[in-house]
Amino acid sequence: MGKAPEEEHPVKAFGWAARDTSGVLSPFKFSRRVTQDEDVRFKILYCGICHSDLHSAKNEWGNSTYPILPGHEVVGVVTEVGSKVKKYKVGDRVGVGCMVGACHTCDNCENNLENYCPKMILTYNSVNSDGTMTYGGYSDHMVANERYIVRIPDNLPLDAAAPLLCAGITTYSPLRYFGLDKPGTKVGVVGLGGLGHVAVKFAKALGATVTVISTSPHKKQEAIEVLGADSFLVSTNPEEMQAAMGTLDGIIDTVSAVHALVPLLFLLKSHGKIIMVGAPEKPLELPVFPLIIGRKTIAGSCIGGMKETQEMIDFAGKHNITPLIEVIPMDYVNTAMERLAKADVKYRFVLDVANTLKAA
Amino acid sequence: MGKAPEEEHPVKAFGWAARDTSGVLSPFKFSRRVTQDEDVRFKILYCGICHSDLHSAKNEWGNSTYPILPGHEVVGVVTEVGSKVKKYKVGDRVGVGCMVGACHTCDNCENNLENYCPKMILTYNSVNSDGTMTYGGYSDHMVANERYIVRIPDNLPLDAAAPLLCAGITTYSPLRYFGLDKPGTKVGVVGLGGLGHVAVKFAKALGATVTVISTSPHKKQEAIEVLGADSFLVSTNPEEMQAAMGTLDGIIDTVSAVHALVPLLFLLKSHGKIIMVGAPEKPLELPVFPLIIGRKTIAGSCIGGMKETQEMIDFAGKHNITPLIEVIPMDYVNTAMERLAKADVKYRFVLDVANTLKAA
Repeated sequence: MGKAPEEEHPVKAFGWAARDTSGVLSPFKFSRRVTQDEDVRFKILYCGICHSDLHSAKNEWGNSTYPILPGHEVVGVVTEVGSKVKKYKVGDRVGVGCMVGACHTCDNCENNLENYCPKMILTYNSVNSDGTMTYGGYSDHMVANERYIVRIPDNLPLDAAAPLLCAGITTYSPLRYFGLDKPGTKVGVVGLGGLGHVAVKFAKALGATVTVISTSPHKKQEAIEVLGADSFLVSTNPEEMQAAMGTLDGIIDTVSAVHALVPLLFLLKSHGKIIMVGAPEKPLELPVFPLIIGRKTIAGSCIGGMKETQEMIDFAGKHNITPLIEVIPMDYVNTAMERLAKADVKYRFVLDVANTLKAA
Repeated sequence: MGKAPEEEHPVKAFGWAARDTSGVLSPFKFSRRVTQDEDVRFKILYCGICHSDLHSAKNEWGNSTYPILPGHEVVGVVTEVGSKVKKYKVGDRVGVGCMVGACHTCDNCENNLENYCPKMILTYNSVNSDGTMTYGGYSDHMVANERYIVRIPDNLPLDAAAPLLCAGITTYSPLRYFGLDKPGTKVGVVGLGGLGHVAVKFAKALGATVTVISTSPHKKQEAIEVLGADSFLVSTNPEEMQAAMGTLDGIIDTVSAVHALVPLLFLLKSHGKIIMVGAPEKPLELPVFPLIIGRKTIAGSCIGGMKETQEMIDFAGKHNITPLIEVIPMDYVNTAMERLAKADVKYRFVLDVANTLKAA
């Protein structure tokens, strides 16, 4: 048997973890490794709450190992660096996103696509190279190889910058890779939640004309007036959907519930693309004819590599892009999870870790 | 009421048409327009039998207008040209594929993608700009605007060249558009029928390493020894499929029956693509997770534009690519359709129109 989480490593750490499929989080003592040559250690100030945290805490994807300590939108200030660290120094504002390791030898790693490395190590609920489990950002501090550390631009507030490390890169990367980043491109964003609202901001900043597609008519005003979308389609309104047929070059589909693809395919121009970044648990229905007659594409995209994550957040800094957030104390996390399950948040919870995480 | 097909136009024509959903073809008198300024008229020598012909003859897609005269892999020799025709003269070896018209003003038409023009006029079962129906190549002659005429390279036999006009361009175009045309690319071809066997030849000629994926182990020897495939996977063999996981850059999926996408997605490398060119009548099941974790794509592709069709057939001429065919007489067509429904053909029937189509 391995050691208890509190005894595995030399450095004491503290956070909130779920112990079972109830997903209820509570104080948890564990430990982290010493700062190795290429490591950066940082005090966590803020951590965003991603919908994946909820899925994982409740083992809804069937791959959770308890105790599970979520959090992969982690930001803070560097407290220690290893002897070979080149890019960071004590006091720097940094963050960690969804991953903390990969093989560094495969084609994907060599092309700065660690996020597609088969041996990618997730920030939590994953196995470190030393065999211990990874624990995420709902905790007092973190240590990671500098390859997985992102520098937060000076002009971005740390709390609002946190969700960029997952929601931001998840939407920015497909906009770039699938060519939806050209001025004048017509981009649709399906679902206006944590991912969707950031997708709108990035697409606009890249020069696209942005249409939000949502089941919720009441989101229209905010989508346009606050987020800057150019238009809004209520997906349950057949007349609106019909009138918009064949108008979009691409769609970022952030919806993780089962939903129909056909109406979205009809919104695309010929050669248009739907990029799925939300992951419904059950298969969707894929009609092949609409794909063929317009040479249309349905693809997926998973966060982004570390080089692109830095590029994304630098772009966000340059264009002053930050998510809309609700900052909450640590002991509100279980209530936040309940609200998140009901999509009752505009648009991302961010834990005020440094001020509210108290040792038991 | 419009005129009878025989009286609509000044020039008498003759072929075989289906009159109802039995799909049984029988002799049919109709007429074609006079040769207009930009028209090329040609005597039909051969016409390939595409699986679409069978679907259409039986109204299996629900859009057939009877009488229906199929055939969109049509080749022959020019007999007359209009006064403004620049590229062709009497005696030239030419062909017509799946379409004979489009709007010529939309973005797709302006980009030589008439095949994606919303007003594209199909070679048969479509409405001409004068309101009359189009009739296909199971007939004595054809007339079309020179934009829709393809020159057949001198070194290609006309009978075997015919199927290139549909099966050829249907597989060549996605190999090019989706970047599966680079030497060293690992390409899978699912289904070894009329489309699949041509896909193998084109992919090989483009420099790819080609894997055939089929439910039929008995096709292995021919796939490798005759068609030139590099390897062969029996899709019902889990060990073979498992061993090939993550090895392909792209897959041309020619299967028009409902089938599972997941095993094909697993064959792809990260960033790999499945291109559907067969159109199952019912939706397929699309699991989203495998798309996301490898940034994989599922897309469709529909024939090709006229410029690319000429490029395809010139490429076929240069590389001596011809389909494997079984040449049959006109009065065998109904038997051929029955055999086609059972996939009992290697790999394409071609009607010997000029020698066997006899006026009633």
